[in-house]
Amino acid sequence: MFEARFQSFEDRDERAASAPRVGALRTELARRGLTGCIVPRADRQQNEYVPACEERLAWLTGFTGSAGAAIVLMERAVLFVDGRYTLQAREQVDTSLFAIEHLVETPPERWIETNLGGHDRLAYDPWLHTVDGAEKLAKACDAAGAALVVVEPDLVDAIWTDRPPPPLGAVTLHDLRFAGESAEDKLTRIRGELTKLRADALVVSDPHAVAWAFNIRGADVAHTPLPLAFAIVPREGRAALHVDGRKLSNDVRHRLEGLADVREPDDFVRALSALGAEKKTVRLDQATAADALARLITSRGGKVARGNCPIALMKAVKNGVEIAGARAAHVRDGAAVARFLAWLDREAPRGKLTEIDAVAALESFRRETGLLKDVSFPTIAGAGADGAVVHYRVTTRTNRTIVPGELFLVDSGGQYQDGTTDITRTVAVGEPSAEMRDRFTRVLKGHIAIARAVFPDGTTGAQLDSFARQFLWAQGLDFDHGTGHGVGSYLSVHEGPARISKLGTAALKRGMILSNEPGYYKTGAYGIRIENLVLVVEAPAVAAAEKPLNAFETLTLAPIDRRLIVAGMLTLDERAWLDRYHARVDATLAPLLDAETRAWLAAATRPLARA
Amino acid sequence: MFEARFQSFEDRDERAASAPRVGALRTELARRGLTGCIVPRADRQQNEYVPACEERLAWLTGFTGSAGAAIVLMERAVLFVDGRYTLQAREQVDTSLFAIEHLVETPPERWIETNLGGHDRLAYDPWLHTVDGAEKLAKACDAAGAALVVVEPDLVDAIWTDRPPPPLGAVTLHDLRFAGESAEDKLTRIRGELTKLRADALVVSDPHAVAWAFNIRGADVAHTPLPLAFAIVPREGRAALHVDGRKLSNDVRHRLEGLADVREPDDFVRALSALGAEKKTVRLDQATAADALARLITSRGGKVARGNCPIALMKAVKNGVEIAGARAAHVRDGAAVARFLAWLDREAPRGKLTEIDAVAALESFRRETGLLKDVSFPTIAGAGADGAVVHYRVTTRTNRTIVPGELFLVDSGGQYQDGTTDITRTVAVGEPSAEMRDRFTRVLKGHIAIARAVFPDGTTGAQLDSFARQFLWAQGLDFDHGTGHGVGSYLSVHEGPARISKLGTAALKRGMILSNEPGYYKTGAYGIRIENLVLVVEAPAVAAAEKPLNAFETLTLAPIDRRLIVAGMLTLDERAWLDRYHARVDATLAPLLDAETRAWLAAATRPLARA
Repeated sequence: MFEARFQSFEDRDERAASAPRVGALRTELARRGLTGCIVPRADRQQNEYVPACEERLAWLTGFTGSAGAAIVLMERAVLFVDGRYTLQAREQVDTSLFAIEHLVETPPERWIETNLGGHDRLAYDPWLHTVDGAEKLAKACDAAGAALVVVEPDLVDAIWTDRPPPPLGAVTLHDLRFAGESAEDKLTRIRGELTKLRADALVVSDPHAVAWAFNIRGADVAHTPLPLAFAIVPREGRAALHVDGRKLSNDVRHRLEGLADVREPDDFVRALSALGAEKKTVRLDQATAADALARLITSRGGKVARGNCPIALMKAVKNGVEIAGARAAHVRDGAAVARFLAWLDREAPRGKLTEIDAVAALESFRRETGLLKDVSFPTIAGAGADGAVVHYRVTTRTNRTIVPGELFLVDSGGQYQDGTTDITRTVAVGEPSAEMRDRFTRVLKGHIAIARAVFPDGTTGAQLDSFARQFLWAQGLDFDHGTGHGVGSYLSVHEGPARISKLGTAALKRGMILSNEPGYYKTGAYGIRIENLVLVVEAPAVAAAEKPLNAFETLTLAPIDRRLIVAGMLTLDERAWLDRYHARVDATLAPLLDAETRAWLAAATRPLARA
Repeated sequence: MFEARFQSFEDRDERAASAPRVGALRTELARRGLTGCIVPRADRQQNEYVPACEERLAWLTGFTGSAGAAIVLMERAVLFVDGRYTLQAREQVDTSLFAIEHLVETPPERWIETNLGGHDRLAYDPWLHTVDGAEKLAKACDAAGAALVVVEPDLVDAIWTDRPPPPLGAVTLHDLRFAGESAEDKLTRIRGELTKLRADALVVSDPHAVAWAFNIRGADVAHTPLPLAFAIVPREGRAALHVDGRKLSNDVRHRLEGLADVREPDDFVRALSALGAEKKTVRLDQATAADALARLITSRGGKVARGNCPIALMKAVKNGVEIAGARAAHVRDGAAVARFLAWLDREAPRGKLTEIDAVAALESFRRETGLLKDVSFPTIAGAGADGAVVHYRVTTRTNRTIVPGELFLVDSGGQYQDGTTDITRTVAVGEPSAEMRDRFTRVLKGHIAIARAVFPDGTTGAQLDSFARQFLWAQGLDFDHGTGHGVGSYLSVHEGPARISKLGTAALKRGMILSNEPGYYKTGAYGIRIENLVLVVEAPAVAAAEKPLNAFETLTLAPIDRRLIVAGMLTLDERAWLDRYHARVDATLAPLLDAETRAWLAAATRPLARA
């Protein structure tokens, strides 16, 4: 059968290890005259995927979710997780050690306000909290009359004896035929932004921004080709790239030295202090940069100019080469997905396939393109009720057989050098119920409303989000996540600043790539999501237009399950969109497919009217 | 002919008076050792309509718009106005005295940063600036190295010799058959909110909130039955109402004294100081309350808890009696509007009517209901190109004849004790062009999309706003204002906190009344707006609904001009909405009308399909 190489189905159970670890942490707290500490799920660069050596929260509590924090006091401890992870936390964590709190409803700062007192001394590591985050902690401790104490490195590091070493993934150059713009030109543009912002230098604390600016990629974390590195770009003079020299081949080092001073990470601290001592005004994104960075600058008298990193927007707007790459990646990926869907249609009705079988098969079809560098995130493959768990990750323990009569939701993506993909398809195995088809059709109508949207320059994602929900709202239904997120170019599958969500306040600009992924989830029964990536493009010309008009071009190419569509619920325009989309999928992918898949695809993409 | 009593068409021209007044102000500045001052268009309670004695900005500059500010330095002066008023300001103001700046693009604080220097001492009156506004001024002066100096009362008051006296409009009790909830019960609810907010007292600085809480109305400003008054509601103990005793009859005073301590406005300052001296935590809305109020509290050691005034939300959610009143007011108002529209249809095609004739006629029809207390704002009546000026107010100078072939936009409303109305209709005079009909139909489709929206509890106006724009966007068109604002109950026609706009972050709650008023404006040619008031109600039950569902009930009753509708551009659902709406308009209003108007209405409301 098929094999997954880029993702594991391991189900770590470290619950039993938690008690002695918490005990050791309390001993360390007492030794240092502290009464508590906060341990976030974070590394120094606030990465979505963190290296093993930064999994402090998982090591301490057993909880492996992608967001959370713990506060450990001498007599009690609490773990904060969001709604996605409440169930998982109760399964993974020893709840006699940790109370579970809701990260959004009772965030750590609110808990601190009501649970700490005048005698408390709470430790935090300013490298693991953003400037904004640390400010909230300080205010909360202040309100409680408690002291917030800088402890660096983190207390967990002091007691974690078998901690894995930091990653040393090789840094590679991201070729101009993928990047489309030289690092020299990018640095020049960044300097132009600094002039506009009246800042002396930019601290680049987000490794995605470092990767984009220097046209490099790395292998330090899972699923995203990130090099863990910092940079400083002064308005005048040479930039500095701070990266562990062991990650650089001689050739890569030589090329990078043509661009910037290549320095060790330890030098970064000295460089920030120097900027401070020179009283420079340093731009820094307070929402993502570690509090430690701002402290190093201001403690020596420098000024921190808070605000978005200008690279974020530059990176989000893809250039012509990146867009051509994205289109090519989606054709390649679409062919792999079509092979997977055809295979699934043959195999699943027999009632023998498991979720892990499907994940392994899909990854294998993608690997057979010969160009897959990694999956862009662990595949979400949820049969039946598992599909209703929005961030479900199948493990050997949760794995189940896909049974006829169920819906099967598969959300997956590939990392190719020319582009990052992200696609969700929900397919019927056996005969779907009338309710499933009604809900699927409502989700599809929302998906099409976004895909067909035409909107003037300056429109934000927040202004479009409801288009995707209106047909669910009409039945008293909704979905509890945003409609879409930005996507990087051979970088993170989740990228700011634009998103389609009620919180999406960034304008959608031509060249941005976002997901369009409305869904519907019936707890304990089934999940539905239909996701394509879309590119913001100039809308077809309209004679009387008074404003520049934008629209979406759908990049993702794979059939949407016709068996789940109630054709009579679609308007003529919606049907026309779907039929045209399917015709394009068939015409584009068929030449890349074997005869069997080609026949399957022709049937799967035939016009609805003839159904 | 008809006569307007509640609105004037006067066109004040005080441009010539401006130079000596600015000269006197500069003399006063020099006398006090100041180098400049800021004069906002504001009174002590940040009212939309201010009494004549508070029209400092108009007196000094000649500019009569409803928003703006001037900064007068020794050698130069600048007037800040927003995009609505740029043209008007250039006409009304002596531009050799005042440079005109854009209030939004270069607000006073930004101008101060780049135009003031270390020697500057800028005066401001903390009674005329909000807490937030004063903070911005202080920051800007700080950045410029200049000093911001408290001068109170305002410098203009010192030189304005023929200043009108403050208004002394009689305070009346707002009867329970209109208010639906006793002031006692309201005060109890407010105290409950204060307990939740952990505040010792609430400073009620918004006169609308004072009017609502004490069930009183007044006559101090135009078009809104506001009593200029302040109040303090402590969490425990008696509330205090600070109002000029000359506005109170013995009976009203007696009734109010049963509710609260009735005190003079001068006592308000002492009461705030006392709260400060007692170290109380006082809730105050920093976005609307005068900076002076916060200063009085904090200067004596009290704590200001910043945040929305809890009354704003309580007032916005109408009770059953207010809702019944609103429905009744809309029937009465709709009949008057129908008489007006029928009259207009007879008279306008002869090409003799002016905009002022129309305004006077409409007011007269409303007065003939016998229950009109005032118009709810000066009627906007724009023929042809005047219709494209969103906030057009006709004066004897701008007045023009309505010519066949034009569109005529009329935005108006009435103040009745049982409800406040606000309606816009755009009518064809003579034969409209194909473009006009296309644009009108797109605006109508947006209006219907809002009217028919169904949305779950917690949905904000920002989430609905784009529904009104989508059909314009598709042609590269848009309108440059929000889709809707909250409306008071025999109070202000503009009321927070909810609105339908991309800035509308308050959830829409059942009982809120908002406007639904998309438009389209072609500069120099015509304006289109279709406005009804809508009430947030529980949506009709849906079997499988997982969330409480809301919808809008349209309150406004008047025909929408069928001659401007391209029926083929409407979906079946849209047509059905319009036909049902028109049938309801006809059935509800016909019994109230004379035979001639009734015949006109029957034709104006017949189903589209038969058109």
